[in-house]
Amino acid sequence: MSSRTNSPAGRLKKAPEGFISPDLINDISRNGLDDTRRNFLKTSFAAAAAVAGGVSTSAMAKSADKGDPLILEKQPWVTLGKPVVARPYGMPSKYEANLQRRQSPGLTQTDQSSVSFAPLQGLFGIITPSGLHFERHHQGWVDIDPEKHRFMINGMVKAPKVYTMDDLMRFPSVSRIHFIECGANTGMEWGNVAVPTVQYTHGMLSCSEFTGVPLKILLEDCGADTENARFVLAEGADGSGMTRTISMEAALDDVIVAYGQNGEMLRPENGYPLRLVVPGVQGVSSVKWLRRIKVGDQPFGTKDEAAHYMDMMPDGMFRQYTSIQEAKSVITSPSGGQALLTKGFYNVTGLAWSGRGKIKQVDVSFDGGKNWRTARLEGPILNKCLTRFNIDWVWDGSPTILQSRATDSTGFVQPRYRQLREVRGSGSVYHNNAIQSWQVAASGEVTNVHVE
Amino acid sequence: MSSRTNSPAGRLKKAPEGFISPDLINDISRNGLDDTRRNFLKTSFAAAAAVAGGVSTSAMAKSADKGDPLILEKQPWVTLGKPVVARPYGMPSKYEANLQRRQSPGLTQTDQSSVSFAPLQGLFGIITPSGLHFERHHQGWVDIDPEKHRFMINGMVKAPKVYTMDDLMRFPSVSRIHFIECGANTGMEWGNVAVPTVQYTHGMLSCSEFTGVPLKILLEDCGADTENARFVLAEGADGSGMTRTISMEAALDDVIVAYGQNGEMLRPENGYPLRLVVPGVQGVSSVKWLRRIKVGDQPFGTKDEAAHYMDMMPDGMFRQYTSIQEAKSVITSPSGGQALLTKGFYNVTGLAWSGRGKIKQVDVSFDGGKNWRTARLEGPILNKCLTRFNIDWVWDGSPTILQSRATDSTGFVQPRYRQLREVRGSGSVYHNNAIQSWQVAASGEVTNVHVE
Repeated sequence: MSSRTNSPAGRLKKAPEGFISPDLINDISRNGLDDTRRNFLKTSFAAAAAVAGGVSTSAMAKSADKGDPLILEKQPWVTLGKPVVARPYGMPSKYEANLQRRQSPGLTQTDQSSVSFAPLQGLFGIITPSGLHFERHHQGWVDIDPEKHRFMINGMVKAPKVYTMDDLMRFPSVSRIHFIECGANTGMEWGNVAVPTVQYTHGMLSCSEFTGVPLKILLEDCGADTENARFVLAEGADGSGMTRTISMEAALDDVIVAYGQNGEMLRPENGYPLRLVVPGVQGVSSVKWLRRIKVGDQPFGTKDEAAHYMDMMPDGMFRQYTSIQEAKSVITSPSGGQALLTKGFYNVTGLAWSGRGKIKQVDVSFDGGKNWRTARLEGPILNKCLTRFNIDWVWDGSPTILQSRATDSTGFVQPRYRQLREVRGSGSVYHNNAIQSWQVAASGEVTNVHVE
Repeated sequence: MSSRTNSPAGRLKKAPEGFISPDLINDISRNGLDDTRRNFLKTSFAAAAAVAGGVSTSAMAKSADKGDPLILEKQPWVTLGKPVVARPYGMPSKYEANLQRRQSPGLTQTDQSSVSFAPLQGLFGIITPSGLHFERHHQGWVDIDPEKHRFMINGMVKAPKVYTMDDLMRFPSVSRIHFIECGANTGMEWGNVAVPTVQYTHGMLSCSEFTGVPLKILLEDCGADTENARFVLAEGADGSGMTRTISMEAALDDVIVAYGQNGEMLRPENGYPLRLVVPGVQGVSSVKWLRRIKVGDQPFGTKDEAAHYMDMMPDGMFRQYTSIQEAKSVITSPSGGQALLTKGFYNVTGLAWSGRGKIKQVDVSFDGGKNWRTARLEGPILNKCLTRFNIDWVWDGSPTILQSRATDSTGFVQPRYRQLREVRGSGSVYHNNAIQSWQVAASGEVTNVHVE
């Protein structure tokens, strides 16, 4: 089994020495395809069978004649493989079985009102595979029959309406790539309670291409009183009765009533068959299993706004209706639990995002915040979307601390803990967007450390 | 079960009438959350329980009291749901089980050297879920142990090198979204042999975010003689011994030695743990299970270039080393096998792509090519990538023919069959990028028709 994603060392673990000898390489270089390409009609099948460090079926005897039985033993995949649609819906390799979302033991009292974290340490690019999207449920997840699901808009509208899924799919649709981050993501890191890996520090974060109907179009369809109404209430159909107030400004801007995620229908854990997507806002507002939007002229003050998802400030007062996820970044590799097993060159990679717009720049420090270098950003750089960054690093074997710092298109710079604490104090749970520190030991082991 | 994606009618099938009566809507509008929001501390839990067209657990008795037992019967999902990590790697809803890749019966003699098609009629946006990526294997697929896999570069290089997967992951990486289209996609449509659905006409097409090392960097690492070498050979590790010649120009431009697909490791059917991605070029060149790149100064003329993947021109000569997938588009909904069950408004949607650059414009005709209207393009619009288009349409119930026509950033306009035939004749199998026609009958049924 590969240990790249299965072990704490993640994908930085050094593989065993190669089994292809330099002699064999030279042999292949001399006798490979060179003498066949100018005479391909006669020897094209032989050409196809002349291979590097191994053999195709018809070349097995020839290579064995050369006295290199290791090749046959070591490349068992040169054979008749499995047919198409062996799996009509494909799954990851058996060697990746341990790359999965995970629950933090003891974090919640039940498994229905709980969290699973996305394995950011093993992910690439910006798209989160739907099977690894983080979960945050308040009363468990359900798999709703889309033929029976209904979506209603009522309140300050000319005519309340009820839509079937098929009704919704006839409306003009949009597709946009956005992150969803739980407001409590990284909440454990406020104190010195450092959890071991980036999966648990930052894994309530995922990013998908969502497809659906702009909420604005549906509000228009119902004749919403957008002159006087200032808020909408979004309500889920699951057992928790999740309800959230959303400003009319957002509702008329980029909020999507979404049925599609990463090209297919939403997954049940992510709200199938219908969810709200409120870009840039803490995940709880992107109500799953969406069954109603109510239009109103005041905030609704529901239980999840009056008793939860509030931030206690230094003066003991609570910030209510907090929402925007501000600029933030994290190095995903190397990260806590991984290990650098040799000195030398590494591609250091991570994610940056902002609920206020696009990522403009990411800087990385390899000395605990003294010096900063600007990372390469992978395109496309999109609004309220994850941005992947990469930066070259040559590790000299000394202990050090790695940090990343995002700047968004508004000019906002991701704060250090000290800066964030000056504003928010230490009693706030939500909206921790401080700079994350990973300590590299001389042994190469990477751990989560708190740096003010 | 939902019939949106499970039936030939696809997602345009009309759902049964809503079970929420207008009276109930009015009742909820009057008695819903209105009286709770100004007094939320006292009534916040009641507020959360006041719901539309259904009930949360604690409100069940109340609704039942109102004499609407249907609600309880019809919304069984208002209950304690399933826990997080019920599925550590998530899967689609049970109601989407029939949205799968499919083999065309009788198209190939074996299931190992065969094709499965992606269900484009049920997909959204531009990302193809990895589980639904089309398959084209020449000797079946294999699941290679990444710790044992090796990748070699040899030929006109200073020093042939062999890399482990862990070696490759330490190199600078890039992430880019690109389509992969088999050169034979839509090949059946050259004649009048119309296959019934867009899954079979255009389903050898998928689009993923790929992550890996630019081939250019690895060629530099080996000291490739890029002054004199003009081609590279890419070779797969599977039983078919797939080998393809790629120009040095492409190799030094945007070719990726990829290990990541849509955020996670490649799927076994798509080349795990390593494949080449040659953007914009027919899929066969994006060699899966990549084990070798050989640098040379002439095309290699392998069996898959000398006996297959050639286009017979009208004069009986063959075009060899064809590669670029030129500008093309298709309406995916409504499409063959679906049905419009009522007159009225529809969101007509589809995909456009070009191997030469970006999509600049897509025009749609609702009258068999007489008049054209420009569709909305969803962002991001990327190089050698699928672009999703949408356009409003009000169907008046008359029979008609729908077509789409892509224009790319080079100014190339997708041709009609007549135009393509003038250049390529009728003996060519590959590179059919002609305009697709879907006929809508008065009954609403959509069928594949050939329009010159």
